[in-house]
Amino acid sequence: MPTIQLEITSGKLAGEGVITAQKKLSQLENVFQDEATRKSMDQDQLIYEVQAYMPVEEGKEGGLYFGNSTIFPGKVNNEYFMTRGHFHTKLDTAEYYWCIQGKGALILMDEEGKTWLEEMTPGSVHYIPGKIAHRVANTGDEKLVFNACWPSEAGHDYATIEKDGFGARLMEVDGKPQLVQNKKEMV
Amino acid sequence: MPTIQLEITSGKLAGEGVITAQKKLSQLENVFQDEATRKSMDQDQLIYEVQAYMPVEEGKEGGLYFGNSTIFPGKVNNEYFMTRGHFHTKLDTAEYYWCIQGKGALILMDEEGKTWLEEMTPGSVHYIPGKIAHRVANTGDEKLVFNACWPSEAGHDYATIEKDGFGARLMEVDGKPQLVQNKKEMV
Repeated sequence: MPTIQLEITSGKLAGEGVITAQKKLSQLENVFQDEATRKSMDQDQLIYEVQAYMPVEEGKEGGLYFGNSTIFPGKVNNEYFMTRGHFHTKLDTAEYYWCIQGKGALILMDEEGKTWLEEMTPGSVHYIPGKIAHRVANTGDEKLVFNACWPSEAGHDYATIEKDGFGARLMEVDGKPQLVQNKKEMV
Repeated sequence: MPTIQLEITSGKLAGEGVITAQKKLSQLENVFQDEATRKSMDQDQLIYEVQAYMPVEEGKEGGLYFGNSTIFPGKVNNEYFMTRGHFHTKLDTAEYYWCIQGKGALILMDEEGKTWLEEMTPGSVHYIPGKIAHRVANTGDEKLVFNACWPSEAGHDYATIEKDGFGARLMEVDGKPQLVQNKKEMV
């Protein structure tokens, strides 16, 4: 098994088998509340970048993956740049995120739509229990970088979030991040 | 779920739920080849220290634990200070180790006793596949520190190693670390 390399202070991965994926604003249709503003912005803008080391095939039980994510600073109107978010396909599987640099929020949601957050600052370690959807928003002025470890059997269920969203969105309100309930949650 | 704190450059964990265990030389009976020398040394000497964050009960499927290990520098005769080593009780479960500081070796063994190593240096990330026993030796002059992530269902099987050992030992030979086959493996 080839070893890979972690740059400890930046969280970046390098080496054979490390894959990288990028999400530009053009690829995040209907992710943010203000879709008109998203469409009016530079579509090539990079919103986030993910590195993953997946030494065994996805779906295998008992294996683990290792990753690094960078979310760039910015907002769509008053909503912070963030990841799409997902449940795990094998729902009851956990994940760790640990923050390396920057400032942000881990947004968590249970299966009933209840949504809350944990603040991410350098060194914060976040245990995401099974059955909990998770997305990350950058609430600062610099890159938000974190590492991750998750089971190879977990998989990613993006469809549930695409359909129903999270129960709340992280907006800048009076200059500060605040979880704002989605209207459909309030009726 | 309370978040815990990782000191990024030292690998140390802090916060509610982080437990610490220490192994002194007195607790490592018959781990090193030269048991007479081990007995003659300071029994209170700390050989290694482990921190673990275990937010769900051991044995639960789909959960994950996060850890930090420090192995102090030194030798018993010409064998480097090292951990006892273990298989996972649920054998086919993986683990990550990633080195933060120091210099050492991850010693790996399959179920047939075949033993090999991966060098540990700051930033090296090691995927330990399922069914592979693992122990770590400090081959340097300073502390060897690494972080770890493993499944909550993995468990620790120390007994198999206590009984049969690894197929080879990491010894200092001509001033350099070298895996030396155990005699019983050579007949």
